[in-house]
Amino acid sequence: KNRKLLSVDEYVDGILKGDITLLSKAVTLVESSKSAHQQLAQQIIQKCLPHSGNSVRIGITGVPGVGKSTFIEALGKYLTNKGEKLAVLAIDPSSERTKGSILGDKTRMEELASDRNAYIRPSPSAGSLGGVARKTRETIILCEAAGYNNIFIETVGVGQSETAVHSMTDFFLLLMLAGAGDELQGIKRGIMEMADLITINKADGSNIEKAEMAKVQYRNAIHLFPAKDSGWAANVVTCSAYKKTGIETIWEQIENYRKQTVDNGYFYQKRNEQATYWMYETIEEQLKRNFYDHPEIKTKLKMLENYVLTDQMSSFVAATELLNTYSKLK
Amino acid sequence: KNRKLLSVDEYVDGILKGDITLLSKAVTLVESSKSAHQQLAQQIIQKCLPHSGNSVRIGITGVPGVGKSTFIEALGKYLTNKGEKLAVLAIDPSSERTKGSILGDKTRMEELASDRNAYIRPSPSAGSLGGVARKTRETIILCEAAGYNNIFIETVGVGQSETAVHSMTDFFLLLMLAGAGDELQGIKRGIMEMADLITINKADGSNIEKAEMAKVQYRNAIHLFPAKDSGWAANVVTCSAYKKTGIETIWEQIENYRKQTVDNGYFYQKRNEQATYWMYETIEEQLKRNFYDHPEIKTKLKMLENYVLTDQMSSFVAATELLNTYSKLK
Repeated sequence: KNRKLLSVDEYVDGILKGDITLLSKAVTLVESSKSAHQQLAQQIIQKCLPHSGNSVRIGITGVPGVGKSTFIEALGKYLTNKGEKLAVLAIDPSSERTKGSILGDKTRMEELASDRNAYIRPSPSAGSLGGVARKTRETIILCEAAGYNNIFIETVGVGQSETAVHSMTDFFLLLMLAGAGDELQGIKRGIMEMADLITINKADGSNIEKAEMAKVQYRNAIHLFPAKDSGWAANVVTCSAYKKTGIETIWEQIENYRKQTVDNGYFYQKRNEQATYWMYETIEEQLKRNFYDHPEIKTKLKMLENYVLTDQMSSFVAATELLNTYSKLK
Repeated sequence: KNRKLLSVDEYVDGILKGDITLLSKAVTLVESSKSAHQQLAQQIIQKCLPHSGNSVRIGITGVPGVGKSTFIEALGKYLTNKGEKLAVLAIDPSSERTKGSILGDKTRMEELASDRNAYIRPSPSAGSLGGVARKTRETIILCEAAGYNNIFIETVGVGQSETAVHSMTDFFLLLMLAGAGDELQGIKRGIMEMADLITINKADGSNIEKAEMAKVQYRNAIHLFPAKDSGWAANVVTCSAYKKTGIETIWEQIENYRKQTVDNGYFYQKRNEQATYWMYETIEEQLKRNFYDHPEIKTKLKMLENYVLTDQMSSFVAATELLNTYSKLK
């Protein structure tokens, strides 16, 4: 049970050599809630940081049934066949209300799972969206240091996770189906506005015509959206992940995006903003954790929450009392 | 400049007598960022709390142009003509990206503004959504203690504010227009799902037929939404705020909702959940404020943020250093 931990340098050396076993062990530390593991993980991350960043980070979202796994496999194999290395991560917080089947199962990406150039890691399952997102972001850094210079972050396109994914990726790809209004697909307008590329999947067989029609409709729709800070004009394309058609065009879009935004400075500006965002996120998450995990606060919180629930105390007075208690404890 | 403050009891007595001047002064304290004002405000709120709660709190949202002011005036006058008292508040955080013209201007509700039974208070303009929302919630308590047993909370239906409004109201009313798809009206699916009543406004003149058609369409659409915890089935109605038609039906819906949810226990269960939610919100907002307002943290934060922006330090290490500094300061 008491699995032996390695030294920081052993993990870091392994990661930099691309050792998939040591990478996985380090990611397990990132995902652990034990404080010793967390400290070790942070040291590993800091040492990997100078070797990270040389990548393109792609967020991929879409509701269940849109064919995300097949799509990721098709685009992933396209990359690995070109000799590229790819890591596939996911954000799937257990707290999300609407659940889709997401990546828990490597068998859904059989080809990629057995591909030496691909690293698939299911979403850390426990914790809040904020916690899961932070862990995923830290995992990105480790994967990049291990040489995976293409990072896919998968999420189910129905909840709050898209904002988290958007905060850690360079490019946001939204998978859609033809013949279903976006309302029916549960996609919020805000998510469509985030997309750098809308891809209509399952454009094969008798579905091709419908997909082409949908492409025109979505192109008209996205022209009405406000211009992006990136200067990039979002596009709509069709593909068949199953038949592996349209995949190259999609990759060209991503490459064009990268070229254009590196040239106009947006690519690294956005990464800087993301880094700052994550600094604030980490601070605020830890401030809360320190507070709520304090044994005396735990006890008092239960009591005062009960007062609030039974109308004996206002929310504000209860909060103030807890905060006063806390400031005296420290 | 140094306006004289009254004692807690002077404010509270005035509020309980329904003195509109003292109520306004107390609300100004709630909205103030000065710590002396805040302390006074919290004492007033705690003393008003036992006299609050006997009300129905109604969130009203809709995009600019939907006729919110005219609607609030029509429904408000309907209530005051019945001898009811009404407070109209708003949430309009300045940080919101898309701004609509909201209630800044009492001249937009001329009749209500001069009505002795109505109290109109524009949104506190400064601060984050969280801060503005907390102040609005505290203002609700003061208004209720002053005898305003109908509370309207207005918001522009395009941003994050709806969630905040939803967290402090019993009933959520969404105003829509006929002949514009909900996508065009910028209404997110999530906001439609929140609605207890969708009201299609401007159902007058040549627009009546379109409004009736829209009613049928929206009724079909909302049948597909998941059932509400309240047990209440959301409805769609039409009205003309301008012609003052359909107003009584809307009020009946709200009354029916109240009866049904008081009977099934949801009404007070939701209020309890909201109270708990606000306790946590207040705690977390204050934890952050304590941190970011600390002079040494301010200085160090600037420095480390710069390191993060120039890739000299990871977000996580910068956050950890700041948190370590903070824990030593206290």
